[in-house]
Amino acid sequence: MSEYTQKESQGMSVGIVEKKAHTFADPPKEMVLECGRRLGPITLAYETCGALDAEKSNAVLILHALSGDAHVAGSHSPEDEKPGWWDSMVGPGKGIDTNKYFVICSNIIGSCMGSTGPCTINPKTVMPHGLDFPVVTIGDMVRAQKTLIDALGIKKLMAVVGGSVGGMQVLEWCVRYPEMVAAAIPLATTTRHSALAIAFNEVARQAIMADPNWNNGDYYYGARPETGLAVARMIGHVTYLSDESMRLKFGRRLQDKRDFSFNFDPEFQVESYLRYQGKRFVERFDANAFLYITKAADYFDLAEQHGSGSMVEAFLKTAARFLVISFTSDWLYPTYQSREMVKAIKKAGLDVSFLEIEAEWGHDAFLIPNPRLSGIIGGFLSRVFNETAR
Amino acid sequence: MSEYTQKESQGMSVGIVEKKAHTFADPPKEMVLECGRRLGPITLAYETCGALDAEKSNAVLILHALSGDAHVAGSHSPEDEKPGWWDSMVGPGKGIDTNKYFVICSNIIGSCMGSTGPCTINPKTVMPHGLDFPVVTIGDMVRAQKTLIDALGIKKLMAVVGGSVGGMQVLEWCVRYPEMVAAAIPLATTTRHSALAIAFNEVARQAIMADPNWNNGDYYYGARPETGLAVARMIGHVTYLSDESMRLKFGRRLQDKRDFSFNFDPEFQVESYLRYQGKRFVERFDANAFLYITKAADYFDLAEQHGSGSMVEAFLKTAARFLVISFTSDWLYPTYQSREMVKAIKKAGLDVSFLEIEAEWGHDAFLIPNPRLSGIIGGFLSRVFNETAR
Repeated sequence: MSEYTQKESQGMSVGIVEKKAHTFADPPKEMVLECGRRLGPITLAYETCGALDAEKSNAVLILHALSGDAHVAGSHSPEDEKPGWWDSMVGPGKGIDTNKYFVICSNIIGSCMGSTGPCTINPKTVMPHGLDFPVVTIGDMVRAQKTLIDALGIKKLMAVVGGSVGGMQVLEWCVRYPEMVAAAIPLATTTRHSALAIAFNEVARQAIMADPNWNNGDYYYGARPETGLAVARMIGHVTYLSDESMRLKFGRRLQDKRDFSFNFDPEFQVESYLRYQGKRFVERFDANAFLYITKAADYFDLAEQHGSGSMVEAFLKTAARFLVISFTSDWLYPTYQSREMVKAIKKAGLDVSFLEIEAEWGHDAFLIPNPRLSGIIGGFLSRVFNETAR
Repeated sequence: MSEYTQKESQGMSVGIVEKKAHTFADPPKEMVLECGRRLGPITLAYETCGALDAEKSNAVLILHALSGDAHVAGSHSPEDEKPGWWDSMVGPGKGIDTNKYFVICSNIIGSCMGSTGPCTINPKTVMPHGLDFPVVTIGDMVRAQKTLIDALGIKKLMAVVGGSVGGMQVLEWCVRYPEMVAAAIPLATTTRHSALAIAFNEVARQAIMADPNWNNGDYYYGARPETGLAVARMIGHVTYLSDESMRLKFGRRLQDKRDFSFNFDPEFQVESYLRYQGKRFVERFDANAFLYITKAADYFDLAEQHGSGSMVEAFLKTAARFLVISFTSDWLYPTYQSREMVKAIKKAGLDVSFLEIEAEWGHDAFLIPNPRLSGIIGGFLSRVFNETAR
């Protein structure tokens, strides 16, 4: 969505950021996952921007969504200038101001962007894990991240921030490590996946598994399930947009002609856009990682997993202050789900601000440059910083 | 959805109905389609219920949706008791009362339920058409139906009724053959496919075309693209339901156990349901037909095709009275699209009633037994009958 990215030019980029990796090389070297299986050694790819202050009190952990990675802001080198996925929000003078805060972003386990996942080599077999990789949960992802934060010597995160599947990790952080989280900003997310969200994920997984090249997850030395993954991405992409955003962005406009082609080539702009998104995605993402991360999202249920079924009880476990943000046109995690979350946070006696942002861009809205969103997040973090860090 | 079908038992079934077929055997024997290609001879499968009165003034034409067929009500034999797809609405004493009206329903061209379509034999090659079948439009479907109505000797239809893609045919009938339509009931439909609706159709088509068994549409003598078609149907099925209906029907309930399986088998009820729907669909539907009918729906744009871009101008071509019905939870063709339609019908000076029905079942709501819906349609048809037929 480069056309929107370019609109935002408040503040500078953080400049060159370094790819880093943290491996659980010290005992126990492995984790017992929620499924009961062991995984290790585990590597987490991560990046940081800004400087950690002497008291280690200005750390902001950013959690990425399904297809995200550790590259949250800046660029990797003058030759590889591709900005991070939230470059509009993270940088000097931006919403998450790297002049003030030390930003950390790590790739989740189960992904394919540098951290241990189904596509990385299993040291025991010296082959990619494939479907032998254990099914990980949002809780497992967060527990792995915690070892990174420990390794960085940070006792308390000033804030954890993330949208979508990243927002689930935010919530998990708050209730799992309450002593380590001062403030939390879950955006465009939910405390549990609805049947609708599960349904879309399941259909996308079926699309991957229907591709004969998927070969039960064992494809790393042959043809990849590119068509299946492309269809899965297209399904996802439709759910990230909205009726309104698609009407504004594409309407019924044809690609490059005035008349119908009367065949099955892409001709509506929205068709070309989706095919392009599907095609681009398979160049950078692993089909098995898609299966594992969507499954983790489907399993997520904060109340069930941390409150014996009660959302309030789950939030009673944390002491964080919250800024909850939803978007009017997000139909994947609609506002009513954020409102339920806010109600439970309040009932748990916590400090919570809630904002529903009028935005036509659907679920994707949290990723799109928005001065109002940057301002709200910046203001909230400033207050937290002034009151907690020193 | 048998659990809902059983709730409705107002009125009796029409009993045994006969499968019939009409073939354009007389000159011209073929049609020039909107794409410019010729198709013929064309066969239309159709069924009727009730009796045509002496004046041939009590005919109600019902138009089916994407995966529907001519079997609208009753059963085919005591051995094959499967009721028609709208048996809750059509029958003696029901909303569309076969004691009073002569109901006709014909399978659309491009489909695979008895009418000429990509899976039927091309007389020139003595092979199934496959992708050589021309891309047909809603207009072509309606023009073919018109030859059937002519053949039945009916000069004017008392009413045309249909939901979804059937509703598009209703609108097309009104503006294309104004002298032949007294009243029209478009349900859960739109005057043009939105970008969102096109997007879902395109992703579903991509799922079919990604299946190697699809073989560019040439699969009738080998393995069929069943996995691709199943995924396509699952995508469709999610769009037919709603967030609310899925929450009520499935929630996060697991299939038959209390704990997660930590693998990729179906475990949430919604997953099993979708896989079952996909599996059942491939037993009865043709993948190419799915491609052709979704394409026809995507092409549909009443204003563009009949009003030089103006919806009002399109409706100025008809003299029908309208009953427009939408459903609160239908997000495929949301109420605002029906409201736009109603506004244009009013501006064209026509008689129109509009009803938005509170229903949690999403787009599928028009197919689900609903005494209120039956009552409204029954009342509207009675008034039309009393005023026009005698």
